[in-house]
Amino acid sequence: MNLLKKSKIYNCGTDLPPYKNTWLLTRLILHVPSVIIVTHIQPTWPIYTSELSKQLRPFFLNMSSATVNPDLARERAGASFDVKELTNILYGGPENVKKRRYLHNVAIQDPVLARTKPWAFRSREEEYNESLRQNIYMYKKMKEMGLNFVERAYYSEAATPTEANAIGVHSGMFTPTIEKQGTEDQKAKWLPLARDLKIIGTYAQTELGHGTFIRGLETIATYDARTKEFVINSPTVTSVKYWPGGLGKTSNCCLVMAQLETQGKRHGIHMFMVQLRDFNTHKLLPGVEAGDIGPKFGFNGNDNGYLRLNNVRVPREHMLMRYAKVLEDGTYIKPPDQRIGYGTMVFIRALIISNISKPLGQACTIAVRYSAVRRQTEVSPGGIEAQIIDYQTQQYKLFPMVATAYAMHFTGQFIQRYYTKISDEIEAGNLESFSVLHALCAGLKAFSTWNCTAGIETCRLCCGGHGYSHASGLPKLYSFHTPGCTYEGENNVMMLQLARFLMKIYPDIKRGAPLNEFLQCYTVDLSKKSCMTEEVALGSLVKAYEHRAARLLEDAAHNMERLVRSGKSRQEAWNASTVALTWAATAFCHLFVVNSFVDLVNKSQTDKNTKDVLTKLCKLYAVHGIIERLGEFIQDGFISPLQITNLQNKLTQLMAEIRPNAVAVVDAFDYPDKILDSCLGRYDGQVYQALYEYAKNSPFNEKEVLDSYFKYVKPSQGEGTSALSRL
Amino acid sequence: MNLLKKSKIYNCGTDLPPYKNTWLLTRLILHVPSVIIVTHIQPTWPIYTSELSKQLRPFFLNMSSATVNPDLARERAGASFDVKELTNILYGGPENVKKRRYLHNVAIQDPVLARTKPWAFRSREEEYNESLRQNIYMYKKMKEMGLNFVERAYYSEAATPTEANAIGVHSGMFTPTIEKQGTEDQKAKWLPLARDLKIIGTYAQTELGHGTFIRGLETIATYDARTKEFVINSPTVTSVKYWPGGLGKTSNCCLVMAQLETQGKRHGIHMFMVQLRDFNTHKLLPGVEAGDIGPKFGFNGNDNGYLRLNNVRVPREHMLMRYAKVLEDGTYIKPPDQRIGYGTMVFIRALIISNISKPLGQACTIAVRYSAVRRQTEVSPGGIEAQIIDYQTQQYKLFPMVATAYAMHFTGQFIQRYYTKISDEIEAGNLESFSVLHALCAGLKAFSTWNCTAGIETCRLCCGGHGYSHASGLPKLYSFHTPGCTYEGENNVMMLQLARFLMKIYPDIKRGAPLNEFLQCYTVDLSKKSCMTEEVALGSLVKAYEHRAARLLEDAAHNMERLVRSGKSRQEAWNASTVALTWAATAFCHLFVVNSFVDLVNKSQTDKNTKDVLTKLCKLYAVHGIIERLGEFIQDGFISPLQITNLQNKLTQLMAEIRPNAVAVVDAFDYPDKILDSCLGRYDGQVYQALYEYAKNSPFNEKEVLDSYFKYVKPSQGEGTSALSRL
Repeated sequence: MNLLKKSKIYNCGTDLPPYKNTWLLTRLILHVPSVIIVTHIQPTWPIYTSELSKQLRPFFLNMSSATVNPDLARERAGASFDVKELTNILYGGPENVKKRRYLHNVAIQDPVLARTKPWAFRSREEEYNESLRQNIYMYKKMKEMGLNFVERAYYSEAATPTEANAIGVHSGMFTPTIEKQGTEDQKAKWLPLARDLKIIGTYAQTELGHGTFIRGLETIATYDARTKEFVINSPTVTSVKYWPGGLGKTSNCCLVMAQLETQGKRHGIHMFMVQLRDFNTHKLLPGVEAGDIGPKFGFNGNDNGYLRLNNVRVPREHMLMRYAKVLEDGTYIKPPDQRIGYGTMVFIRALIISNISKPLGQACTIAVRYSAVRRQTEVSPGGIEAQIIDYQTQQYKLFPMVATAYAMHFTGQFIQRYYTKISDEIEAGNLESFSVLHALCAGLKAFSTWNCTAGIETCRLCCGGHGYSHASGLPKLYSFHTPGCTYEGENNVMMLQLARFLMKIYPDIKRGAPLNEFLQCYTVDLSKKSCMTEEVALGSLVKAYEHRAARLLEDAAHNMERLVRSGKSRQEAWNASTVALTWAATAFCHLFVVNSFVDLVNKSQTDKNTKDVLTKLCKLYAVHGIIERLGEFIQDGFISPLQITNLQNKLTQLMAEIRPNAVAVVDAFDYPDKILDSCLGRYDGQVYQALYEYAKNSPFNEKEVLDSYFKYVKPSQGEGTSALSRL
Repeated sequence: MNLLKKSKIYNCGTDLPPYKNTWLLTRLILHVPSVIIVTHIQPTWPIYTSELSKQLRPFFLNMSSATVNPDLARERAGASFDVKELTNILYGGPENVKKRRYLHNVAIQDPVLARTKPWAFRSREEEYNESLRQNIYMYKKMKEMGLNFVERAYYSEAATPTEANAIGVHSGMFTPTIEKQGTEDQKAKWLPLARDLKIIGTYAQTELGHGTFIRGLETIATYDARTKEFVINSPTVTSVKYWPGGLGKTSNCCLVMAQLETQGKRHGIHMFMVQLRDFNTHKLLPGVEAGDIGPKFGFNGNDNGYLRLNNVRVPREHMLMRYAKVLEDGTYIKPPDQRIGYGTMVFIRALIISNISKPLGQACTIAVRYSAVRRQTEVSPGGIEAQIIDYQTQQYKLFPMVATAYAMHFTGQFIQRYYTKISDEIEAGNLESFSVLHALCAGLKAFSTWNCTAGIETCRLCCGGHGYSHASGLPKLYSFHTPGCTYEGENNVMMLQLARFLMKIYPDIKRGAPLNEFLQCYTVDLSKKSCMTEEVALGSLVKAYEHRAARLLEDAAHNMERLVRSGKSRQEAWNASTVALTWAATAFCHLFVVNSFVDLVNKSQTDKNTKDVLTKLCKLYAVHGIIERLGEFIQDGFISPLQITNLQNKLTQLMAEIRPNAVAVVDAFDYPDKILDSCLGRYDGQVYQALYEYAKNSPFNEKEVLDSYFKYVKPSQGEGTSALSRL
């Protein structure tokens, strides 16, 4: 990061008048290569002009950011606050913003990472190859630059924004699991190899017949004390490993999760290092059957794979033995605490929570900018057509999603801080707060992925027909991120894990025992009514969410008690209450998110105008949430009919107040065009010209007449058509 | 259809014991080709075994429907009603069901229509080519068989279930528009050519900058009285036609919607027949610039295209002149009624309403069958893992979607009957009921596409990780049908068209004027409370929906009045009320759907058990709708807290009651495996074996080691890895 300190940083988006951008960009790239230019106005297309047909070049040269769509320019000029200020709040201050932009631009300006054609024009094979090439390059580059965890995230989101990553599991799960669960010997032996990509590994947990319930895995590792080896097998079709990223073609090693059997006894699931492919030829080793699982909704640059093991032997030292152990004679030593192995899992869930707001922020940026440019339907007969962002129905869909992106962003930051705090405690052997963290991450993982991915689809649908084209960048955002609802714990199961935790502490609540800081909501007096006034203060909104969370938990608990009294076992009562329990857990998460946002607003040290915008977004998030699940808030009369009317009026008012700042609010997410990768979301708003050029470049247009015309169409027409010269 | 009468029809699914299927199938196909076998147990894979690698053949031969997954077999055996009976109700009686199966099987057994590899394994070019080949074949075949409209739908859903159709607009819009809006001369000249595919046409309305608001279209047709021609131009980038299906590469003709200008005056949009490509060479004609618009979320077998016209001249006779006319000297003759041109539009919307339940029914079939086969998490420690369909949370997601598929199916049938009735009146020049039909189709088009496509995604997410693979068939169902929310009228605009109609009749409601049969709900007394008892009768549910619809319309009207009183113009008040208006219109649609379902249940002449299942589905649809939008029903105290508890208990009870019949209820949709095209939804429930085989066939697995390994991975590893022989 030394370069950062030395460089003069320009931000073409805000620091310089737009007309100077092209000139500056050209001059500096051509003549002053050591200066880093922060070109947050990256026209989408020039990135790959070099390999496009020559006829298009003049067009691209003309399409500089100098010509920002006047509607968009007017929106920006009309904002009531300083965008930079909000960006600073989002990313933790000006220094971090500077670093983030720097790293984005290092990636954007790197010719090795340049995109040679639009993402969607690639075949699956091209997608995989490009992704592999870029990700290997990026992996080495990040090591070379000595980036830390946060810096890596910034660099990679701009380096390969749309590529599924065939070595993502290697860096995200394989290596960290060795770090966390390996012995010192194992770490010393494998980590250097892994960090140099000399071995590329994946993490094989899910099986064809087994997902979230990992105790049900069937893959078995039987210890053979004679040879001091584990013999690993996939005994059934349902035990075939299925889905691990990079497993199909890329990885040569794998951490396999399997049932451990030693001395004739089963000891539950443990991790085993298995070499899959020959280090020289990359061919599969004997006993290993593996391959790609075929095309999916998204992630097609990733070779998610299957793996069937047939009497594959690995040395005893290949079981990860930091906690549990198998001695030479086969004696099994239990780990000090069963939960300790869940560390990676909780880490990944916390990461999902803090990352899933990003694609929603990107989708909002695309949809809001496009909605400011798109004009449709004259408002008064014969008048000019209105910007679609002026339609209340459009605002009602989009603005709450913008608010959600902010809310989830701040919640993610909150969880990251909390995770760091708790995991330090865990590393020190203190597992006291682990169950809170575990439950919280489970519930919030579900809540955040459900809401953010649904929000991305809302944004796509807000862009009408053009949102359906891959040119918009939106379908990809959805199909790439929707698996977050399933992987690392299926969302319904996750929400019920939180519910189980809440039901466990329910007796404590009832007897007034001291509760964890996050559980204070359950101490509210449910007989009290809402004190919300016409102004709809943040405090009164939080109280409404607290009341709802407490009431729904009580409802679920009463429901279970009633069933138990009627003769059902606790397990049966649980099974017959999971819908109510899900509602209770969801209400807790919703409150948590509202609280995180309110907390940020209250604590942020910023100017009045910026704080005003933040407050409005926060309020919109909370009010919209009540309106959408109104029944849960009013069912017991907590909110009165008059207060409902106030809330509905407030909603309309907030949308109208946010309207003039909408573009600036999404600009503040500060995503360069290369990341957005969207004809509709371009910073310069030249959407129609971009769509037209996108179409002209479609691979189908390389030939004026396709071969299929001669093969299928012409023969079907008989002679009649040829005889017609003109219609 | 003569063959139908002569053939002996067997249905392997229900008429014969399962173990006989394979034998029968083989015998009859090989030896008795003139007999049609209704093989509704079509294993997914045998369809394309012929071109698969030889090693797989033995597997497929073993995988007959003789081995139905025991969980699924048990579900079927345990159903309380006769599946055939429900299928008969869905498709209008045994004769129609027989016809539907016959036509499915004619398509399924036709080798020309056989699928040579899974849909998702194709490149976009292969997808387009295959789709074109099959659709041209199918088009001719349907003509040859002399199928009517309904029969064509049955045949084609099995002939090319997953293929986007490059000539779909030709048969669905181009030809019907000539039929409806052409003069006798035009019909005589063009229809024979179109029906023989001697010309292939598309319908170009949408422009880059103009969608639902068709009055804003910019393409202009100027009449030149000197040459008696229209000169058609795309004057701007935003006027470039964009999206029409089959326009990019396939069509040689096009109906272009353009602003008519004659004698220096504009007369609004009219339709012009334009030849795009040479009939011999298929090359674009002078002045015509057209091409494919590139890859999209789905529909990639369709060459949706763009079109830019530069001084293209067509004879005066190329304007569709059944209603409006331009005389030789350029005199413009207005159509008798402006609305008459909307006929095709309303027809297509009615068609969407009746078709969109089909993919939801398919998604439900896949998800419910898979949920019966999938086992996950032991319910009691150490016990057998439960079928996921037994989890209440899974039921709460899936069963209401099954009920929705039924509700929308019956609503679609209702609308079709109503459309036929009204369009007969329109043909006879009576436009009185047109505005009701127009408003109804607008609102229901939005309501049905929103709910059914969201339901498809719910089904996909209910299938966990495997739902994300294209092997499940689910991602495709969503991405193929979600454009229904946008095309033929953007849904928000559609809902507001209905709202506009409702506000127009609002004064009639207030003064007690007689109302159309569908609007009777607005005469309810809003001060009355719900009479719902613990039993939650269908009648009381309808009353709840009526109350909500009437209250929300009144709310929206009051809101507008308040704004007008505060000094806003009516237009401004409208714009500031569109969210409330959308709620009111949605509530009307929701009531309409509940009514259609209740009507069907009340009128259906069937046995007690079948009626019982239908009633439960209907009730579940209505109860779930209330729970999900509870606030709207209880806001004014119409439903009491006790009644809410009753509703919630009823919901739980209904789910438990539907549970044992769930598989049978989706079986009743009677979709053969070829249509479902899903490893998860197979009739025989052998999902894991199917997924495993799907993976093994992935194109990525043709080579054991991909070239990219040598190109990117190996060079990045330096010499270290090769030196390692084993880890």
